[in-house]
Amino acid sequence: MDEPRVLLDYGSGGKAAQRLITDLFARCFANPILAAMDDAALLQGLSGQLAMSTDGYTVDPLEFPGGTIGTLAVHGTVNDVAMLGARPLYLSCAFILEEGLPMALLERIVESMGEAARSAGVHIVTGDTKVVPKGAADKMFIVTTGLGEVLSSPTPSGSRALPGDAILLSGSIGDHGLTVLSRREGLPLAADARSDSAALHHMVAALVREVGSIHTLRDPTRGGLATTLNEIAAQSGVLCNIQESAIPVRPGIMAGCAVLGLDPLYLANEGKLICVLPKNLADEALAVMRSFPEGQEAVRIGSIQAPGQYGKAGQVVLHTALGGKRLLGMLEGEQLPRIC
Amino acid sequence: MDEPRVLLDYGSGGKAAQRLITDLFARCFANPILAAMDDAALLQGLSGQLAMSTDGYTVDPLEFPGGTIGTLAVHGTVNDVAMLGARPLYLSCAFILEEGLPMALLERIVESMGEAARSAGVHIVTGDTKVVPKGAADKMFIVTTGLGEVLSSPTPSGSRALPGDAILLSGSIGDHGLTVLSRREGLPLAADARSDSAALHHMVAALVREVGSIHTLRDPTRGGLATTLNEIAAQSGVLCNIQESAIPVRPGIMAGCAVLGLDPLYLANEGKLICVLPKNLADEALAVMRSFPEGQEAVRIGSIQAPGQYGKAGQVVLHTALGGKRLLGMLEGEQLPRIC
Repeated sequence: MDEPRVLLDYGSGGKAAQRLITDLFARCFANPILAAMDDAALLQGLSGQLAMSTDGYTVDPLEFPGGTIGTLAVHGTVNDVAMLGARPLYLSCAFILEEGLPMALLERIVESMGEAARSAGVHIVTGDTKVVPKGAADKMFIVTTGLGEVLSSPTPSGSRALPGDAILLSGSIGDHGLTVLSRREGLPLAADARSDSAALHHMVAALVREVGSIHTLRDPTRGGLATTLNEIAAQSGVLCNIQESAIPVRPGIMAGCAVLGLDPLYLANEGKLICVLPKNLADEALAVMRSFPEGQEAVRIGSIQAPGQYGKAGQVVLHTALGGKRLLGMLEGEQLPRIC
Repeated sequence: MDEPRVLLDYGSGGKAAQRLITDLFARCFANPILAAMDDAALLQGLSGQLAMSTDGYTVDPLEFPGGTIGTLAVHGTVNDVAMLGARPLYLSCAFILEEGLPMALLERIVESMGEAARSAGVHIVTGDTKVVPKGAADKMFIVTTGLGEVLSSPTPSGSRALPGDAILLSGSIGDHGLTVLSRREGLPLAADARSDSAALHHMVAALVREVGSIHTLRDPTRGGLATTLNEIAAQSGVLCNIQESAIPVRPGIMAGCAVLGLDPLYLANEGKLICVLPKNLADEALAVMRSFPEGQEAVRIGSIQAPGQYGKAGQVVLHTALGGKRLLGMLEGEQLPRIC
């Protein structure tokens, strides 16, 4: 017997669509707001400044060591909201499905997504499903939008890094990018590699509450650490000085990158953050970060400097392990498509 | 010379992606919140109950008489937020683009989207762009999420229709569905057909403010008028009695449907709403609706009844022009894929 598959009429707004919503989404995402089943979700009791963020997920393959497109869609958007120093509360999600997608695969992904949301303490309150004919989309895409309450003001921003600030990184880089690539291409490299996909909002809340005065928070996803540092340098009109030897990269990731000719500095991460804050608060912030499983390997990787003799505003200078210096540009071109 | 096209690295998070954001999105969607360019948008001054809604848009073709996928993505989400009796304020948008999409087409769509948002008075405050390799998506998909402030409480809901209530419809049905289908298939039918795509939130605000006591608001999009009425009947545990002769259908749409074997009651609309409210307020509500261009043809199409001798809870009974009665079911199967 053929395995059950997603049919075009699951996205029609009709009876089959209702069954999909009731049987799968309402079960996996169960919460009272979603249960109202109106065109929009009614959110009560939000106040103060809010943070809103959206991201599309097109990762291929849909399942990989350490996550699925569904967990990524929860973690990624939770993290984007958190980077504004906010507590993520609500997510919306839109699915675009290819006709013929195996139902068992969709179910595994929706279940993993519901589990990721529950474990992060956020509610998926409203959603939408479209099914396109076979060939009009590759398997499935998910778009999540997150809404949260800002915990303190002024909020961390890419434009608030100041000369003298320390630059902290919450852990090793390159894990997500190399894991997805290896799995997609069937490469035998980095067999123990796992995506670092994780929700960072509890760590962010602790940083804001216990350390305060966080100037910049950013998660180095697409384009990797190097690109995100360039964005911060440009937005703040400063120079980032980075010590190459301080950046944690797992040996398996390093080896995989060497074989494939990839630079871990440009690989996507999905469970890491960059924190820029006054240097006298750096040790306290590192202690807070290390108290969370996802920040155990947090380190200081450099400092912010005023533009001047060592470089121009917007530049990132990498001090190499051998004592040299090189400018680290933004990612040029697409290193890896469909990595998140 | 080849025309400029969307390249994979436009979605990489790197330099090319930044140029796309700066040159196109920031220009077309210009507003101070988007300009901050952080991972999330910072929203100030929202209070009370909020409405949040999301929708994916996969319409094919991307441009059609009366709109584009971009205007549809603005109007559709603005309307979903409005159906909760809310004033839409902010939108996020995520683009999933196919490598090779002509840049000129993308620009036209983003420009039309910006214009639709400005004209509706909503701000597109945050977004995301992914580019997938050629063949992994058909041209482009857009997902928008809307956020708005609820204007009055209790909010209109599909579950609040009461026996004795009047059922109003803001205008003719079937225009969007038949227009998109005709254009996609290159059919010569209904040459003057245009999508009814429009933002209905100003009409909703006037209804809530001037008439009050609106029990249910719904926009009959996918699945059409018949499916949406079935949802209301089921959610409220009531019967909908509909007069077929009262439902406005343009002659060109009627003729096109007859040739194609389509039922306008099941065709998607993108600028219409169903309003259920106490019958003594019906005339006042119709006067308000008719004072807006998008509600000029507003009519009363039926009434809500308690389940009993004429039918069961959840049923929609159509009283035909010839004096007969028939049960109007929900859409079974997919009448038209990629219609919105």
